[in-house]
Amino acid sequence: MPDRKPLPRSDLRLRNVPLGPVVVFGASNFPLAFSVAGGDTASALAAGCPVVVKAHSAHPGTSELVGRALQAAVAECGLHEGVFSLLFGAGAEVGAALVADPRIKAVGFTGSRSGGMELVNISSRRPEPIPVYAEMSSINPVYLLPAALAARAEAIGREFVTSLTMGAGQFCTNPGLVFALKGPNLERFLDSAAVALKAYAPPPMLTPGIHKAYEAGVQALSEHNQVETIARGRVGEGVNQGTGALFATDAKDFMADERLGHEVFGSSSLVVRCDDVDGLVTLSEKLEGQLTATLQMELDDVGIARRLMPVLERKAGRILANGWPTGVEVSHAMVHGGPFPATSDSRTTSVGSLAISRFLRPVCYQDLPSELLPDELRDDSKRPRLVDGTRAG
Amino acid sequence: MPDRKPLPRSDLRLRNVPLGPVVVFGASNFPLAFSVAGGDTASALAAGCPVVVKAHSAHPGTSELVGRALQAAVAECGLHEGVFSLLFGAGAEVGAALVADPRIKAVGFTGSRSGGMELVNISSRRPEPIPVYAEMSSINPVYLLPAALAARAEAIGREFVTSLTMGAGQFCTNPGLVFALKGPNLERFLDSAAVALKAYAPPPMLTPGIHKAYEAGVQALSEHNQVETIARGRVGEGVNQGTGALFATDAKDFMADERLGHEVFGSSSLVVRCDDVDGLVTLSEKLEGQLTATLQMELDDVGIARRLMPVLERKAGRILANGWPTGVEVSHAMVHGGPFPATSDSRTTSVGSLAISRFLRPVCYQDLPSELLPDELRDDSKRPRLVDGTRAG
Repeated sequence: MPDRKPLPRSDLRLRNVPLGPVVVFGASNFPLAFSVAGGDTASALAAGCPVVVKAHSAHPGTSELVGRALQAAVAECGLHEGVFSLLFGAGAEVGAALVADPRIKAVGFTGSRSGGMELVNISSRRPEPIPVYAEMSSINPVYLLPAALAARAEAIGREFVTSLTMGAGQFCTNPGLVFALKGPNLERFLDSAAVALKAYAPPPMLTPGIHKAYEAGVQALSEHNQVETIARGRVGEGVNQGTGALFATDAKDFMADERLGHEVFGSSSLVVRCDDVDGLVTLSEKLEGQLTATLQMELDDVGIARRLMPVLERKAGRILANGWPTGVEVSHAMVHGGPFPATSDSRTTSVGSLAISRFLRPVCYQDLPSELLPDELRDDSKRPRLVDGTRAG
Repeated sequence: MPDRKPLPRSDLRLRNVPLGPVVVFGASNFPLAFSVAGGDTASALAAGCPVVVKAHSAHPGTSELVGRALQAAVAECGLHEGVFSLLFGAGAEVGAALVADPRIKAVGFTGSRSGGMELVNISSRRPEPIPVYAEMSSINPVYLLPAALAARAEAIGREFVTSLTMGAGQFCTNPGLVFALKGPNLERFLDSAAVALKAYAPPPMLTPGIHKAYEAGVQALSEHNQVETIARGRVGEGVNQGTGALFATDAKDFMADERLGHEVFGSSSLVVRCDDVDGLVTLSEKLEGQLTATLQMELDDVGIARRLMPVLERKAGRILANGWPTGVEVSHAMVHGGPFPATSDSRTTSVGSLAISRFLRPVCYQDLPSELLPDELRDDSKRPRLVDGTRAG
C-alpha cells in the first residue's frame, strides 16, 4: 500500500523457520511410537530441526535398531549426518547435559512428572531458556452419567476393564479415575467391572522400576482407610506382573486427600461415588490438568454433560464421548496434551500434525526484493497460503 | 471412518480455547500502544482471556484514563467486570505477586531484559509454570551493503539518524548497531550521519531512570579505548534530555568485548567497520537474538545478502530491506518478536494477529454428540475451517 496516508504500508510476508536442534527423550512405554523414531522425532524433523535422541534405558536394543534405520535413511536422503543422533546412558547425566547445552533449542519428553519437571528446571536455569514439551502425568477421568449407567452399566463395566488393562495399564491415557452418582446402577457397573478384572491375567510390565512403583501405588490405596477394594485381577506367576486393581471411595474422602488424585501408572483405577450432580461438578473443578476426559452418556444425559463441558475444557486436552481414552489417533485434530501437570506446555500436542508447530518460530520479511525471498513467499509460489488474511493458492 | 480396519476412526474436531487470566505489564515507552489497552491486552481479550494490567509507574495518569475507558467498554458490552482489572504499584511487589498467583495463566511484558527475566524466573518457581511473553532487549543491526553505500551513502546517513532519534531513541526496534565494510563510502555515510545528528535537539526522555541509564551507557562507550566518538547531538536545556551519540569501532574490537553488544536504550548507535564480507558474516553469527535486522542494499548486493539471510533468519524475528526498523505495522504477517534475549519466547509475536495465539490452547472433541459441540465445530457451522486438512466454509 505505497499510497497509504500518513505513511505507506510495507510489503510484509511471513513464514515459519525451525527453532534449531531438538533433544528427544524416548518414552519407556512406547518403544516405537514415542521413542527414537516416534512422534517427537518425526515432528521435529518435519519442522526442519536436527534431532538428538536420548534412548530410554528400558529398551536399548530396540533403540539401537531404530536408530540405525534412521541413520541409514538420513544417508539415503543425502542429508547431513548431524540431522539425527542417538545417545545412550543409564542415569540422568547425559540427558541433563543435553538439555543444558546452549546449542539445543527445544526438548521433547514423555514420562514421569518428576522426570519432566527436572528437565523444565534445567531449562529454566539456562542463560537462554528454551521450550520444554514434557508430557507427564494424567489420570484421565471417566464420567459415567446416569442415563448411560441405567441403559448399559454391564457393558460399560466390561469395556472399561478392557481400556484399563490394555498394555498392562501403561498408557498415558489410562482411565485411572471414574466419577459417577451413587446408586444401584453404579453398583451394577462395579459388579460387571469386578468380574472382568478378576479374569485379567497380567502381562509383565515394562521395567522392574515401573512394576515396583505400581505395586507401591496399589498398596497405598489398598491400605487407605477411606478406600474400598472392589476387585483385584489374577496374580501373575512371572516377573514384573502387576495385578489389576479397582478401588472405590466417596466424593468427600476424595476431596479430603489429594494423594487419591495421584497417578498410579498401571492397571489400577479409583471409582468416586458422588451424591449429586453438583458434587460431580465441584469435584471436577478441583482436578489437576488432564490429557483426556471421557463421558459415558445417553442423550438424556446432555443436561449434565453441558454443565461439565466448560469445566472439562479447562482441565483436559481431549474430551470424548462413549469411547475410551486409550486410543490416540494421529490426525489434524488430535490433541495429546493438556493443562499442567498433564504437560508442561498446554499450548501444544505431541500427537497429530499440530505437533510440528512446537518446533517452529515465525520470521517476517519486509520489502525484500524477490531475489532474497524464500521460494514459498514469492509472488509466483504455488503453495497454499494466506494473502491479506485470505486463503490463496 | 467407522469401517476402517483394524479399528474404526473416531470423529475428531479441534478448536482453541483461552488459557485463562492474563497479567499484562504496561511498557514505559508506549503509554498507549503497549500499555493498559495496548497489543498485549487486545490480543489476550481477543483470545477470550480476562486481563489484569499492572500499570507502569512512568504514566499513572494515562493508565488510569485508559483503564477507566476500558472499564466503561466492558460494562457497555455487558461483560463481567472481572474481564478487565488495573493495578498500580511503584515497586516490583505487585507485579511479582500477580505472576506468582495460581489463578494467572500467562504473562505479557514489554521492558528491560532484567525485568523480563525476573518475571520468567518467578514463573519457573511456580508449582505450575506458565507462559511468559517478555519482549526485552534488541540492538537491531543494520547492514549497509557496498553497492547501497556507493549509490546513496549520504541519504542513508540522514535516514538513519531520523530512525535513531525517533521518540528520543526509545523504540524497541531502535537501530543501535550498524555493520558495513571499511572504506570511503562508509566514511561518506558517517559524515552525513554526523551532520544530521549534530543538528538533533533531544526531547525529554520518558523517565529520569531511563535518562540516567542512557547517559551511563553513552559514557561507557565514550570512554572505551577501542571506540571512536563520531558525533554527538545538541545538549538539551531541560530535564532528562539524552544527547544523541554515534560511535564507531572495528570488527575485531567489537568481537573482543561483549559489552559493546549491549543495548543502550535511547538515541545511541555503534558503527562496526568490517574488513570484508567474511568478517560481516562471522560477526553476525556471534550476535544475540534480535527483533529486527535491516539490509540497506542494491541489486548488486544480492550475493552478499544471500550469504547473510540464513544467519539473519536464525537471529531475528523480522528482516527488512531498504527501510528502517522503527516502524512496526499491525498486520497478519508482522513479527515483533525474535530469539532470546529479544524475547523470552521466540515462537510468537506481540504485534499483529498472530499475537492472539499466545493466549490459546487446543482442545479436541472426540465423537461428541452435536448437542455438546461448540457452535463453530458443528456440521452446520458457516465459519471458515479445515475439514480433513483442507479449507472449507
